[in-house]
Amino acid sequence: MDMHPYLWGDPERAVALPEAAGAALAHLGASPSPEPVQPADSRLPEVVLPNRARAAIESAVGAEHVSLDPGVRVGHTRGWSTPDLLRLRSGDASDAPDAVVFPGTHEEVLAVLRACSEHRVAVVPYSGGTSVVGGLRPARTGFAGVVALDLRRMDALLALDAVSRTATLQAGARGPHAERLLGGHGFTLGHFPQSYEGASIGGYAAARSAGQSSAGYGRFDEMVVGVVLATPRGTVELGSAPKSAAGPDLRQLVLGSEGAIGVITSVTVRLRPVPRERVYEGWRFDSFDTGTAALRQLAQDGPSPTVLRLSDEAETAVNMADPNGEPGGGSGGCLAVVGFEGADVSAKREAVARVLREAGGEPLGTGPGESWREGRYRAPYLRDPLLAAGALVETLETATFWSGLPALRTAVTDALTSALSAQGTSALVLCHISHVYETGASLYFTVVCAQAEDPVSQWREAKRAANEAIRAAGATISHHHGVGTDHRDTYAQEIGPLAVEALRAVKSTFDPAGILNPGVLIS
Amino acid sequence: MDMHPYLWGDPERAVALPEAAGAALAHLGASPSPEPVQPADSRLPEVVLPNRARAAIESAVGAEHVSLDPGVRVGHTRGWSTPDLLRLRSGDASDAPDAVVFPGTHEEVLAVLRACSEHRVAVVPYSGGTSVVGGLRPARTGFAGVVALDLRRMDALLALDAVSRTATLQAGARGPHAERLLGGHGFTLGHFPQSYEGASIGGYAAARSAGQSSAGYGRFDEMVVGVVLATPRGTVELGSAPKSAAGPDLRQLVLGSEGAIGVITSVTVRLRPVPRERVYEGWRFDSFDTGTAALRQLAQDGPSPTVLRLSDEAETAVNMADPNGEPGGGSGGCLAVVGFEGADVSAKREAVARVLREAGGEPLGTGPGESWREGRYRAPYLRDPLLAAGALVETLETATFWSGLPALRTAVTDALTSALSAQGTSALVLCHISHVYETGASLYFTVVCAQAEDPVSQWREAKRAANEAIRAAGATISHHHGVGTDHRDTYAQEIGPLAVEALRAVKSTFDPAGILNPGVLIS
Repeated sequence: MDMHPYLWGDPERAVALPEAAGAALAHLGASPSPEPVQPADSRLPEVVLPNRARAAIESAVGAEHVSLDPGVRVGHTRGWSTPDLLRLRSGDASDAPDAVVFPGTHEEVLAVLRACSEHRVAVVPYSGGTSVVGGLRPARTGFAGVVALDLRRMDALLALDAVSRTATLQAGARGPHAERLLGGHGFTLGHFPQSYEGASIGGYAAARSAGQSSAGYGRFDEMVVGVVLATPRGTVELGSAPKSAAGPDLRQLVLGSEGAIGVITSVTVRLRPVPRERVYEGWRFDSFDTGTAALRQLAQDGPSPTVLRLSDEAETAVNMADPNGEPGGGSGGCLAVVGFEGADVSAKREAVARVLREAGGEPLGTGPGESWREGRYRAPYLRDPLLAAGALVETLETATFWSGLPALRTAVTDALTSALSAQGTSALVLCHISHVYETGASLYFTVVCAQAEDPVSQWREAKRAANEAIRAAGATISHHHGVGTDHRDTYAQEIGPLAVEALRAVKSTFDPAGILNPGVLIS
Repeated sequence: MDMHPYLWGDPERAVALPEAAGAALAHLGASPSPEPVQPADSRLPEVVLPNRARAAIESAVGAEHVSLDPGVRVGHTRGWSTPDLLRLRSGDASDAPDAVVFPGTHEEVLAVLRACSEHRVAVVPYSGGTSVVGGLRPARTGFAGVVALDLRRMDALLALDAVSRTATLQAGARGPHAERLLGGHGFTLGHFPQSYEGASIGGYAAARSAGQSSAGYGRFDEMVVGVVLATPRGTVELGSAPKSAAGPDLRQLVLGSEGAIGVITSVTVRLRPVPRERVYEGWRFDSFDTGTAALRQLAQDGPSPTVLRLSDEAETAVNMADPNGEPGGGSGGCLAVVGFEGADVSAKREAVARVLREAGGEPLGTGPGESWREGRYRAPYLRDPLLAAGALVETLETATFWSGLPALRTAVTDALTSALSAQGTSALVLCHISHVYETGASLYFTVVCAQAEDPVSQWREAKRAANEAIRAAGATISHHHGVGTDHRDTYAQEIGPLAVEALRAVKSTFDPAGILNPGVLIS
């Protein structure tokens, strides 16, 4: 499936806005946006890639695997953040690469990186292209050109060890394709982020992805047991054992490196058997605090469901988490979605129910749960008609320790609301917990308001305010979206100048010419 | 408790050799070693620390916290590997530091590191001093002197967050002291390595320790949510959230760094409630392969006990795992120890029993389990009388994926046996699995034979053969002992030259003068 440059996913699955949304948007003051510019009419920068550089890259992968086609270039312009989409919808493809390169093997990736190092061509590693933090918007200054390195041809299952329950997948395999490959052997990865239909194995690893089933299957960084990295100076191969005390865990240095120190070409992941049963149910809590306490209890003392989410009052009310219109529990309160997957889930389901009842939860049956499961990949589809209807809609997320969670939610909600109100656009700010740990949890915010005249700068202001609130609370600037260019400065504050220098030293070691995703992760 | 330089632990708990051991040692050809040299009679190198350097260090921590006392220096000479002990027993304290520095705060550690950088004095971070891989044997060449930086004064509980279940402990707190501090609040760390009585929080972190209860409580690197590192260039503080996608997980770069890039001064760890129940039991399997399959099933499909260990036939037979003499099951076979800790362990215990029975296990009741639990910290005590009796006794460990485990065990056992036989000393090689993961497990080997004329070089040959077998199998050179100086070259092969360069670049960033534990981890 090739996605449209600014319309998410499979065109046959495009969704219309629910009727109720129309009234809400009118209330927020949104009025339909002008028709977006067609991709073919986008304003593309001139190709500046020198002929000698192009020839070197072509000799690395074969001329037929290097494309300068304007449509292909537009299709590799930026990622899927709302500002990225707004720019493309307005016809601005100024961040398009000069060329898109499609290597077929790890060795070809190495050859491309050598050629680009020699000719000072910036390389944007690209597999799913679904970054929402500006991870595909490289700095161009000082480079002879920019190429996107699209790994889609590298999507094979290289090895499967049914005894150890591991598989080695090439980086370009997208979520559904990887699941099909593994499913044929009775296994699943269990990694289902909202970007599942578009994102790929390499991207999951490079951006430290966390899927919606993280309570049961873990985060992607917990699934990785091995990784192969192509760098301009050669190959780094890590992962001799599930766990080791042989020095720092360098796999965890590659995971989250966002294409800035090398190109992940294959990943060895832990597998689980395809579950025989799947049951998702809804629970209602009187307040977000009561619901949070219940989630915390499950995360700390167990048993752990496979999926565990809690929407705040606002999200439950507008039912953003459920575009099908299933009720979140009638009389206000907060909806929790609790999912179970496994060989036989009944015992665990009963045990979890006892904990949730005791914590003040009211069971809503499987309706809201199954409805959430069916609609779980629909939110990215919903953004397209919302943008067309003149809404600014965007998400951001963070994580902190349990004791700081309530204050963090309030601070970020207030920061977003104030920053948007100050620009004359009152906003809906919705929040949910979607990933829980023994010591803390993530918070995921969805913001909806009317687009101002310049929605890109409108959002920039709101985002800046949210980032400041997150930093002031001592929380992380991203639980699962990553750093990209959007979070780079806040990230530098989070880890401090010495740690930034250390990352830069690692980058210089692997990428002395500095061609890899310049400006992403570190400046 | 101050330990004797070469006799483990609390003198009142010293153990004598079981009678059966005498006959076995005689069979191996061991005859009592000469009386060891008393620490006070050790040959110490002259103190070369220049006066100006000493003055600078004294001004950083106060003169009363810098010791040049020969007894203190001998007490900080090397760690607890058998070669380390053999050298000290023979009176060789040539690796003693010039001075031992006892800082009281993070700021004092920073000041010491700045002073030592300026004066080119090598610094060996020292908290428990229990390294068994030469982690406390720095290269001296090119330095004006060597000081040990003993963190014992920094052993406080700095913060405890009962809601998030985290605690911040200073690095110098030893295991039992940390447990007492946490126990007062109803919490435990659940980290019980065999070195528990001697090792400290900072060492657990720096060496990526794994405790005997790792199946239930996790490895130490999984417990750490935050870390503070003092470097010659300043402080690095990491851990804004339980998990994050804000770049690589740099905590995992500090964990396992073995004092080579900075001094860990405090660690924030995840806590668990003190368990109300503890039940340990024994199970017998006909063969190591059957037992391994049973452990794998529990690790992959659950439920997971808190402790899960399996001795091979040889270890079960000589009962090395159980110095109390409890039988491993009578008629040969392999002993598994299965431990449960928690609020109410009966349901899990029954579920585990069903899996183990089905997998061919025969329950031996709680006798062998409780006996293992009581004796779990006794092995390090047992080494002292064994060395005195003329035995060479040492351990090594590795980890790999399940499918490679049987071949790895055979290869390492054969390598050790052959290398020692070739030197005229037939050896007992015992093995157990002590840490299990979904995708693989660790193997821990104990080797006993008669000491040859030069037992240090005798072991060096055996260890070299084992390292080669581990590398040839693609396994990791250490699951929980670390790299130190003993594993440095094999470690470099394991991660490859580019990754070594990256580590060196990180070290140069934090420690431009290269004073931190020189020669440890990387050359």
